[in-house]
Amino acid sequence: MRYSKLLGKSLRQPPKEAEAISHKLLAKGGFIDQLAAGIYTFLPLGWRVHKKIENIIREELDKIGAQEFSMSVLQPKSLWLETGRWTSIDPPLFTTKDRHDKEYALGPTHEEVITDLARRVVKSYKDLPFSAYQIQDKFRNELRSTGGLLRTREFFMKDLYSFHADKKDFDQFFKKVLEAYTKIFDRVGLKTLVSQASGGTIGGDVTYEFQVPAAVGEDLVFFCKSCGYAINKELLEERGITDKCPECRAKLDQTNAIEAGQVFSLGTKYSKDMDANFIDETGKQQPIIMGCYGIGIGRLMATIAEVSYDDKGIIWPENVAPFSIHLVPIGSNKKVTEKTEEVYEKLIKNGEEVLFDDRGESPGVKLADADLIGVPIRYVVSEKTLEKDSVEVKKRSEKTSKLVKISQI
Amino acid sequence: MRYSKLLGKSLRQPPKEAEAISHKLLAKGGFIDQLAAGIYTFLPLGWRVHKKIENIIREELDKIGAQEFSMSVLQPKSLWLETGRWTSIDPPLFTTKDRHDKEYALGPTHEEVITDLARRVVKSYKDLPFSAYQIQDKFRNELRSTGGLLRTREFFMKDLYSFHADKKDFDQFFKKVLEAYTKIFDRVGLKTLVSQASGGTIGGDVTYEFQVPAAVGEDLVFFCKSCGYAINKELLEERGITDKCPECRAKLDQTNAIEAGQVFSLGTKYSKDMDANFIDETGKQQPIIMGCYGIGIGRLMATIAEVSYDDKGIIWPENVAPFSIHLVPIGSNKKVTEKTEEVYEKLIKNGEEVLFDDRGESPGVKLADADLIGVPIRYVVSEKTLEKDSVEVKKRSEKTSKLVKISQI
Repeated sequence: MRYSKLLGKSLRQPPKEAEAISHKLLAKGGFIDQLAAGIYTFLPLGWRVHKKIENIIREELDKIGAQEFSMSVLQPKSLWLETGRWTSIDPPLFTTKDRHDKEYALGPTHEEVITDLARRVVKSYKDLPFSAYQIQDKFRNELRSTGGLLRTREFFMKDLYSFHADKKDFDQFFKKVLEAYTKIFDRVGLKTLVSQASGGTIGGDVTYEFQVPAAVGEDLVFFCKSCGYAINKELLEERGITDKCPECRAKLDQTNAIEAGQVFSLGTKYSKDMDANFIDETGKQQPIIMGCYGIGIGRLMATIAEVSYDDKGIIWPENVAPFSIHLVPIGSNKKVTEKTEEVYEKLIKNGEEVLFDDRGESPGVKLADADLIGVPIRYVVSEKTLEKDSVEVKKRSEKTSKLVKISQI
Repeated sequence: MRYSKLLGKSLRQPPKEAEAISHKLLAKGGFIDQLAAGIYTFLPLGWRVHKKIENIIREELDKIGAQEFSMSVLQPKSLWLETGRWTSIDPPLFTTKDRHDKEYALGPTHEEVITDLARRVVKSYKDLPFSAYQIQDKFRNELRSTGGLLRTREFFMKDLYSFHADKKDFDQFFKKVLEAYTKIFDRVGLKTLVSQASGGTIGGDVTYEFQVPAAVGEDLVFFCKSCGYAINKELLEERGITDKCPECRAKLDQTNAIEAGQVFSLGTKYSKDMDANFIDETGKQQPIIMGCYGIGIGRLMATIAEVSYDDKGIIWPENVAPFSIHLVPIGSNKKVTEKTEEVYEKLIKNGEEVLFDDRGESPGVKLADADLIGVPIRYVVSEKTLEKDSVEVKKRSEKTSKLVKISQI
């Protein structure tokens, strides 16, 4: 990709309302563009990162047998009345009306819709278990929406739902999801605390949050360095836990953290509200046991930026970087231009995803943009490197560079 | 994929409101599930087809240099007031309000949003041309929504927008898009008439519709078998064309057709309404010249079903089929079961996408479901085929089958 052609280039200054590091860097780097409070356009650079995260999630969920599908944004009010969440959910729903005055929620989550589907397709224990997920646009009518992608009013979420005949089967699947989540966060370069939490308006008895320690995080998490136990502030207080780990009695530490994913054991909450039942092996009607599991993709992207940056810009982990190599020619003499084109062709032929800064900007501007955008590896071609028939190769995460012969690329 | 585990299996009967062939077959086959009038869940089978179509579109648009990105569903009313379309667009907008009583459209299209982006990022002719597309959820407040996926109130659309400094550059790109569209429709197995049409509430001087002849189609298209000229009914009447081809004077034929894609030459309609200008090479301010280009993915999927089916079900073209092979064991004796598992493993190892009907249903039910779902190739394993250490291989589109040795799979 030639940077000159890219829609959404770097800005000289971040938007003045931006406070969070990730908001500043993602906006300044040309990853996102704010359309309204809490509503963003993902520019091509940002969308590349988004899609890489999506695909990592898909791979890990496909491995545990979850099926991808897609539910709608518009959800009939009638379903939300069945669970009582039309008015109780927090933050409240965005709603709309059709030309027959029928009301719809703009889905912030899909328990109602999928439970309605399940009660129609599940007849007996033979139809269970199953699990299905979507990566789909969600809406939350937040009163205030600051922090860039950390708290938005519209965002893509991976939401996974699972349906089971008994608790044992649910527990097995729940464990698989925890393992899949651990792999997902690991692959996108995040270290998480798996923190016990309360269910909020999603509900359920057991929930875990995957919390990423970060100063900007709105959650307060207490964790045990010794055994790995973690719990969020609300539940800690509810349970009357003091500063000792309830598992191993070591002292609990605390940290601000960003909730990057959450898993809920819903039990029969939704299946009872909505009569989603099945006939068990003895011929008896039973409510289906459910779980739901969410990861907000945009927030995850911002979280990565919050924990992987320096004073110059973002440092993308390789697996989610928008490009693998940022190619920067220094100087505009003919030989530099020609050789850079040659290197560009070679790298593409090698299967690399290359961002080629072909603009007529100064070396300072181009190198600063390379650091800001944060592609993992930078290739610089200059008269000096060409004296040795080489390019200068530098990792974004390291200070030192080395010369690599063009013939060896 | 084991069919027993699939979310959304075949129905014995199509929904009673279904009239269009594609609606009946997609619902009965377990591809889609209606949530409300004109609002559907794509079940895993249907979503697989959807994603294959998406990826074909991506490949062809990436080849012409268009950049993928993603704009939001929620669009501020203020932008729609600038173009006057807040009230004029037909069908009307779905709208919603936030907690500060600020109004938003649920985007049916994104000219306003991307023109707003363009006027902020484009300064001079050096920032042009560029083109960007998204595959994104759209909303149309249709009064009536029948016909399954042919006319919905929520649907994924590929919308591409292009921005140019002059008409010549626009014309070149427009031609590239026409070629890309031709390739896309060809790859998904559709023959189209490229029909001249009027712009409707999207606007612009020249528009072409990619029309697929089909009895269920709501459009009436006049076309010339001799030279390929085609024009829709409204424009034909507007231009006072009778039954003679204006290009070659041959007699025009007419057909009902489904509009599967549309391309618009927008000129400066939006850039003038919204002050999206650039400084040209002489230092003069000029409005940006624009084009927009849409394909509704769900409608395309339904269109394929409308033209590729028989009395037993859908016949998916290979490139968009949910699976490449439908594997059906006949009989439940141990050898059949074991050998089918062996074949299943082999096919997966060969990189095939296999739908394995592992249910305990009768041969009649399983074979009927295979025809209904319409996977291009069916493999049957039975005691009879195993007598010859073989499977029976049959194309969905053909009557005859042949035996293939399991050792040769």
